[in-house]
Amino acid sequence: MAITGVLRPGHAQIRVLDLEEGVKFYRDVLGLVDMGRDSQGRHYFKAWDERDHHSVLIRQADKAGIDLFGFKVDSEETLNKFEKDLQAYGVTTKRIPAGEMINTGERVQFTLNNGHTIELYADKKDVGNCQGYSHPKPWTPEAEHGIAPVRMDHALLAGGDLDQALDIFVNVLGFYLVEEVVAPDGMKVGIWLSCSNKVHDIAFLRHTEDAKLHHVSFYLDTWEKVLRAADIMSMNEVPVDIGPTRHGITRGATIYAWDRSGNRFETFAGGYISYPDHKTLTWPLEHLPEGLDYAQRKLHETFLTVFS
Amino acid sequence: MAITGVLRPGHAQIRVLDLEEGVKFYRDVLGLVDMGRDSQGRHYFKAWDERDHHSVLIRQADKAGIDLFGFKVDSEETLNKFEKDLQAYGVTTKRIPAGEMINTGERVQFTLNNGHTIELYADKKDVGNCQGYSHPKPWTPEAEHGIAPVRMDHALLAGGDLDQALDIFVNVLGFYLVEEVVAPDGMKVGIWLSCSNKVHDIAFLRHTEDAKLHHVSFYLDTWEKVLRAADIMSMNEVPVDIGPTRHGITRGATIYAWDRSGNRFETFAGGYISYPDHKTLTWPLEHLPEGLDYAQRKLHETFLTVFS
Amino acid sequence: MAITGVLRPGHAQIRVLDLEEGVKFYRDVLGLVDMGRDSQGRHYFKAWDERDHHSVLIRQADKAGIDLFGFKVDSEETLNKFEKDLQAYGVTTKRIPAGEMINTGERVQFTLNNGHTIELYADKKDVGNCQGYSHPKPWTPEAEHGIAPVRMDHALLAGGDLDQALDIFVNVLGFYLVEEVVAPDGMKVGIWLSCSNKVHDIAFLRHTEDAKLHHVSFYLDTWEKVLRAADIMSMNEVPVDIGPTRHGITRGATIYAWDRSGNRFETFAGGYISYPDHKTLTWPLEHLPEGLDYAQRKLHETFLTVFS
Amino acid sequence: MAITGVLRPGHAQIRVLDLEEGVKFYRDVLGLVDMGRDSQGRHYFKAWDERDHHSVLIRQADKAGIDLFGFKVDSEETLNKFEKDLQAYGVTTKRIPAGEMINTGERVQFTLNNGHTIELYADKKDVGNCQGYSHPKPWTPEAEHGIAPVRMDHALLAGGDLDQALDIFVNVLGFYLVEEVVAPDGMKVGIWLSCSNKVHDIAFLRHTEDAKLHHVSFYLDTWEKVLRAADIMSMNEVPVDIGPTRHGITRGATIYAWDRSGNRFETFAGGYISYPDHKTLTWPLEHLPEGLDYAQRKLHETFLTVFS
Repeated sequence: MAITGVLRPGHAQIRVLDLEEGVKFYRDVLGLVDMGRDSQGRHYFKAWDERDHHSVLIRQADKAGIDLFGFKVDSEETLNKFEKDLQAYGVTTKRIPAGEMINTGERVQFTLNNGHTIELYADKKDVGNCQGYSHPKPWTPEAEHGIAPVRMDHALLAGGDLDQALDIFVNVLGFYLVEEVVAPDGMKVGIWLSCSNKVHDIAFLRHTEDAKLHHVSFYLDTWEKVLRAADIMSMNEVPVDIGPTRHGITRGATIYAWDRSGNRFETFAGGYISYPDHKTLTWPLEHLPEGLDYAQRKLHETFLTVFS
Repeated sequence: MAITGVLRPGHAQIRVLDLEEGVKFYRDVLGLVDMGRDSQGRHYFKAWDERDHHSVLIRQADKAGIDLFGFKVDSEETLNKFEKDLQAYGVTTKRIPAGEMINTGERVQFTLNNGHTIELYADKKDVGNCQGYSHPKPWTPEAEHGIAPVRMDHALLAGGDLDQALDIFVNVLGFYLVEEVVAPDGMKVGIWLSCSNKVHDIAFLRHTEDAKLHHVSFYLDTWEKVLRAADIMSMNEVPVDIGPTRHGITRGATIYAWDRSGNRFETFAGGYISYPDHKTLTWPLEHLPEGLDYAQRKLHETFLTVFS
Repeated sequence: MAITGVLRPGHAQIRVLDLEEGVKFYRDVLGLVDMGRDSQGRHYFKAWDERDHHSVLIRQADKAGIDLFGFKVDSEETLNKFEKDLQAYGVTTKRIPAGEMINTGERVQFTLNNGHTIELYADKKDVGNCQGYSHPKPWTPEAEHGIAPVRMDHALLAGGDLDQALDIFVNVLGFYLVEEVVAPDGMKVGIWLSCSNKVHDIAFLRHTEDAKLHHVSFYLDTWEKVLRAADIMSMNEVPVDIGPTRHGITRGATIYAWDRSGNRFETFAGGYISYPDHKTLTWPLEHLPEGLDYAQRKLHETFLTVFS
Repeated sequence: MAITGVLRPGHAQIRVLDLEEGVKFYRDVLGLVDMGRDSQGRHYFKAWDERDHHSVLIRQADKAGIDLFGFKVDSEETLNKFEKDLQAYGVTTKRIPAGEMINTGERVQFTLNNGHTIELYADKKDVGNCQGYSHPKPWTPEAEHGIAPVRMDHALLAGGDLDQALDIFVNVLGFYLVEEVVAPDGMKVGIWLSCSNKVHDIAFLRHTEDAKLHHVSFYLDTWEKVLRAADIMSMNEVPVDIGPTRHGITRGATIYAWDRSGNRFETFAGGYISYPDHKTLTWPLEHLPEGLDYAQRKLHETFLTVFS
């Protein structure tokens, strides 16, 4: 198996119904670091322990949801290669000029059959994780402002054509399939894909509607911080969907909740280390309840219905 | 305020529909230490870190529920005094001879207006917490067999006459009211009572039916062990009611689940240290949702309806 | 055994070499809430989750150490009774007028043969734990300012006459002996005493010099917060003596460190619940190494030598 | 930067002075799964959550230490390529036939100037992580037998020629330098290298003697399990070198201890996620004390002296 040149999820651009309310939420409740606004009105954030300039953008719109999900690749050569490979696969790609997104180089953008826009880029300014590069502290005050995840970790996106998404991510972009939910007839219903040692860098659900966001996910270091996140959600009257609980799928200890505009997000900890030579773990559909909520073994109805 | 001579909850006697199934559940899933059976067919258990001979008894019956909840007092003198005080209060008391319950001295039993039988005793055999009294280890292998709580902690009992229960526990037995849920008209709906530095040694809900068990509760040392408990419940297909989550009331980090017979039990960690000079914390009824499930701010319907 | 009317350790008065430096340390590093200064120049602090007005006082002096350690009792009647009992025991007592210590009632003070001044009081103003008494949050921002213990928990004091201290605390004040270190000849070398369900409310070491402070101790809710305390100590160049590790004695997960003036303090979590009917746990002197540092089984030389 | 085809550390072969004692230690104290013995007398172990057949081998010898450290690569093609690249670099390589190590394919072995033998292989039998590949449990009983790390994580090896090791791992094998300790004259004293998203897959110290083992390291999921490891070490009288504490370098929460033969090993949790585009973190030598023991800011003398 060839190893991919995709490094990690680099940014998610999320639509909110009210920008100022959104800034307050992402900065003070979720606890991301405020990285400012661009001339288009997009507001930028990073998680405290991330080094690149931003990982979340929000923009005001009439409808909540996700505009795009971007991955950083390891070099311009890799970016060019993926561009060609995507075109060869039959996907239309678009080059977005450097600087269109602040502190970010050229991006290669394409849209999956399931309606989701994905983009790749090789360059984003390293601004450091709230401290220098010499004898750093293990954490800084930013790590305790709001929920304060260490990183934007992955997204779970929903839409009709799961098979193309799987094919492109595995066969063009070099991801591997870590876990999957499979219906009795063999049809894949959900897929968890990695380009790293994380159990998921992106995941997809098969869904009747395209371009739906299930959630963008943020990583916390410990289960105790998941409880702290739950407390902060409650103190701020953030509606919680599921959790705290453990996902059977990925083992992550999780909360699903909704931002002020109805975009579901996840704060989670744990999971396990994953490698491309690992066999895919399969969840027959009848085991989805414990795959979703291992404690309660319950398929919360919102899981498959309430998307933005 | 006079200090009570009640030491702690000493035992709960629970009815199960099938004794062998119950033994397996309480020993191997909940992870209590098996202390054997008496000639009446009651099976005895203790939590690994408790020193007295037992804290849970189960017996087979046609209907699940709780037979009685017992408290250990600090001396025979205190036992005699409480007996007289209860009689003076107008409660009928009964002496159960020493040995009727294995390794346990005389018990003074009485029934509250809400249908619950409470008993007091001064003597139970110290069998040690799975190790000796010289340079003990911090824990032993028993601490990892099943969920393995460190102690039976308290019970939440339901029935009609909350006021008498409050009056007897505070004014006769010397407990103090730590937290309470109060309806708009001032009527207490739930009370959490302590005879110690724990946030609850017994609690009561006002309910339309008498003699109902909401749950018997078991203490775990950490929130991580609450997650472990959730995992073990799921591995054993134990139906979970609520959690893992935090109670706003008492701050405890909790799971409610049901044993094989439908008796709800709790495994929890945390809370705070409580003292008799502390003002009672009040939860107006409209805040009961976050009092119950702080993360989800939700009044799960089972909370007030599904009792054994 | 009679139950004591002593509620809890109420305050420790500590000498620092520089008051302003001390205020910065106790407020911003240890993370106590600043409760102001009195006309004598004593500076007052409380832990965020304590409800009474203060639990720590610091004053400037030429020599570090502890001036006095105070306990709150449950009523004026109890205070009067202890005063008489102490006098009957042969101890000289002194009444300090109400208000001499801010927001504090009359205090009954006496000095042990080991040189330590102990005081009792029944009244201190309830200022609340950084939030109200109706549907409180589980924690507030104060809980994350500095190390931020939930309470001042106990002190370990050293001096020559251990036996008198044991006798007075058990036989006059009604404490019980939870754990002890015993030399081969049967002489007690260390004693851990409780007036509650905590494993220690005060402890004493036998030592060649009188009136020595081993440490004042502060409680943290979790082992994760002990690591956070270690991080904050390091970030602030606070010299650490021992830990993070577990004490075999009391099971507490601990760090010993020194304030800016050389007063050792402890931040710890865990332990177990203790009751007056529990047999004392005994540590033969040869097991003191694991009693002190269970991980390393090592008797750090500072333990018995570097006191303030 | 090219992405490496090295997947992960695959096995460490450790010399013990007594094989039976070693088996007991690695199986029952460290808590690895016993995978049997080969005809050469090497005993095999795996961590419970690893899927490949083994990750630790011990063999009896007169002198403790490490024989070799092996990495799994992603394919035979990668193995062949690395073999050629190493030869082109000027390193002598040796092919070990498939099956010489049980359930393991051909290995390409070479020796660094610092005296350490490294090997690469593409194939080892997948035996699963103590459960199947369909709807797996998050953990199994093996996860609580002894210390029970989830994986063998990395090794820290010492010897004279640090520069060649760095050059080969970075420029031939495609690792990247995550953290480093640098002397005032610019000489690197310690290097932490990754082929993944882990903060270290192998690390080297500059040392006066070649072929020295500082430690082989095992990963635990949480800081609470680090405390549990400390308890188990103490219960089994395992000598502890350092910890529990946090490393400033890598942020890992750690214990160093010694096996029955004097081989230092580490059990640790935490750290952070690392990427090849991250700038190297530098620890000037004067900050090594907090790099090693962040809590105590102390350079324990054993760190640089007691190797096997």
